[in-house]
Amino acid sequence: MGTVRKITMKEIAELSGVGKSTVSRYFNGGYVKEETRKRIASIIQQYNYEPNSFARLKAKSSRMIGIIAPCLDSIVTSQVLMSIDRHLRQEGYSTIIINTDHQETLELQYLEKLWRMNVDGLILSATHLSDAHRTLLSQIDIPVVVVAQNYPDGICIINDDYYGGKFVGSYIGSRHHRSVACLCVDTWDEAIGVVRRQGILDGLKESGIERPYVYLSDFSFAHACTQVERILDEHSIDALICSTDRQALGAYKVIRERGYRIPQDISIISFGGYDISELLTPQLATVRFDTEYSGKCCARTILRMIRNEEVQPIQYVNYTFIEGESVCTRTPHPSDE
Amino acid sequence: MGTVRKITMKEIAELSGVGKSTVSRYFNGGYVKEETRKRIASIIQQYNYEPNSFARLKAKSSRMIGIIAPCLDSIVTSQVLMSIDRHLRQEGYSTIIINTDHQETLELQYLEKLWRMNVDGLILSATHLSDAHRTLLSQIDIPVVVVAQNYPDGICIINDDYYGGKFVGSYIGSRHHRSVACLCVDTWDEAIGVVRRQGILDGLKESGIERPYVYLSDFSFAHACTQVERILDEHSIDALICSTDRQALGAYKVIRERGYRIPQDISIISFGGYDISELLTPQLATVRFDTEYSGKCCARTILRMIRNEEVQPIQYVNYTFIEGESVCTRTPHPSDE
Repeated sequence: MGTVRKITMKEIAELSGVGKSTVSRYFNGGYVKEETRKRIASIIQQYNYEPNSFARLKAKSSRMIGIIAPCLDSIVTSQVLMSIDRHLRQEGYSTIIINTDHQETLELQYLEKLWRMNVDGLILSATHLSDAHRTLLSQIDIPVVVVAQNYPDGICIINDDYYGGKFVGSYIGSRHHRSVACLCVDTWDEAIGVVRRQGILDGLKESGIERPYVYLSDFSFAHACTQVERILDEHSIDALICSTDRQALGAYKVIRERGYRIPQDISIISFGGYDISELLTPQLATVRFDTEYSGKCCARTILRMIRNEEVQPIQYVNYTFIEGESVCTRTPHPSDE
Repeated sequence: MGTVRKITMKEIAELSGVGKSTVSRYFNGGYVKEETRKRIASIIQQYNYEPNSFARLKAKSSRMIGIIAPCLDSIVTSQVLMSIDRHLRQEGYSTIIINTDHQETLELQYLEKLWRMNVDGLILSATHLSDAHRTLLSQIDIPVVVVAQNYPDGICIINDDYYGGKFVGSYIGSRHHRSVACLCVDTWDEAIGVVRRQGILDGLKESGIERPYVYLSDFSFAHACTQVERILDEHSIDALICSTDRQALGAYKVIRERGYRIPQDISIISFGGYDISELLTPQLATVRFDTEYSGKCCARTILRMIRNEEVQPIQYVNYTFIEGESVCTRTPHPSDE
């Protein structure tokens, strides 16, 4: 059963024919190609390696986790950050947060900066994962958890955007709306702009709404207002699906200014479930993803990775529906019968 | 006219009879007692010291500014943080943020942690400055700007809470409300719990309202709801002054659940001016402090301090009033005539 001599990480790297950082990634739950993973595993078995002896080879633990956030003024992102922070603190870790203002080049710079600051792990709250991200993340030799976007090369915690979207699409469709507009975000944001959008469109399609009017907006209140103005100028709609509550707040403002009634003239539904959306009159119908769970899951996962425990590559965060009063049921069209 | 020999920072310290860190603080805009300041100044003059030669003695600039934030889920704090971050980035600096969840011991720990991480300056978004804070801050040899609380020993950027409060008090008083409740925060938060509250009380008093019902609440939606329940159980009021829009949102919820009308039965006014408060029906009357300016001012001030330029010890952030529709004018009582 092989030798009993203790070997160093450097030796494992040499015997496996890979770099030391790859071996470190192997032990820290980072991405390692399947073939390489097998090679390292076989060397380890051969030398009766015990993982704990390696932990001590690493730089002294800083007990700090770095978080890259795309912004600080999103209610949902802030709730997830607060939850991560609270759960990590309970385990004796502190978090340092860097805001990237949705700029990819800054995300890359700051990932590297945090890594050099000797954090024990990184949580990336991403809006988009480019090839540059993947390359950089694969070189980072500490645990990385991606939150809010799918990351097939590593570990991620994501909202169940497809089924949340599909629920909303069929909710609107099944209430006999006939002229539906969707305020979507750019496909650059894969979770919301691609996956959530596809869910919405599939849900609508199943209910016979094949061609909703799709308009793009960013996440700001102001841009949502502009785009809802355009929708109302260009179409006569009886329902509007927004990608976030913030967009829905803009829609409320514009729709009222135009003298339309919610939901009698136009139904509105969205994703978010902010405290304040409950106070709108009529109360907003919205899908809420569990931000507390999302943060807890991030914290638990990165700590498991730091301790070299096994983690699931993808964990989904579930949603609840807050029915509100902003969607009504239209009279079915004779042709529906 | 003294000698022309170049002296080192260590020598200035020895000649002034103080530690090297005090001399460093002197050059970096930190707190130095007036008497010590004079002593150092006289040594410097005597030796024809030029400040720039000292800059090079410092550790290499990290071009990072550390920010201590009390929370990440306050709309106002998030807006200030985003503004600070944006303005610092424009000047080539990045910011790292640590959240303290309103815990003083964490604030102290993290201030020191950020300082050890070799940031070029620290911005403390404080809810409370204790003696322990003052002691620690006086030992930190890099520029520190305090935002949102008065800091007489150093440099601060504060909202004009007293006059904002006084405006609100007299606005309510002058509209002939007779039974007024104030939802205040604990005096532990000096800016909001002491200064803003005193402004409100003084404004009310000038209008003849000597004894409003003062209730305490924290900043959460849930606690505000509980306290508004108590106010309504215990008193018959015709106006409610809240310390933040979030509290006002709680008040809207409870007041409506009880079947009262806003403002016909109870007027509501508060401080915040969130985007979303505009969408409440009726629209919330609220005082908005300029968060964009506040952030800009923090960034500009810390950069001036890093460059050893002069800064004002206190800078005030102004407010605007959003009139809304949530306050009405009551019929004057015969005795008012």
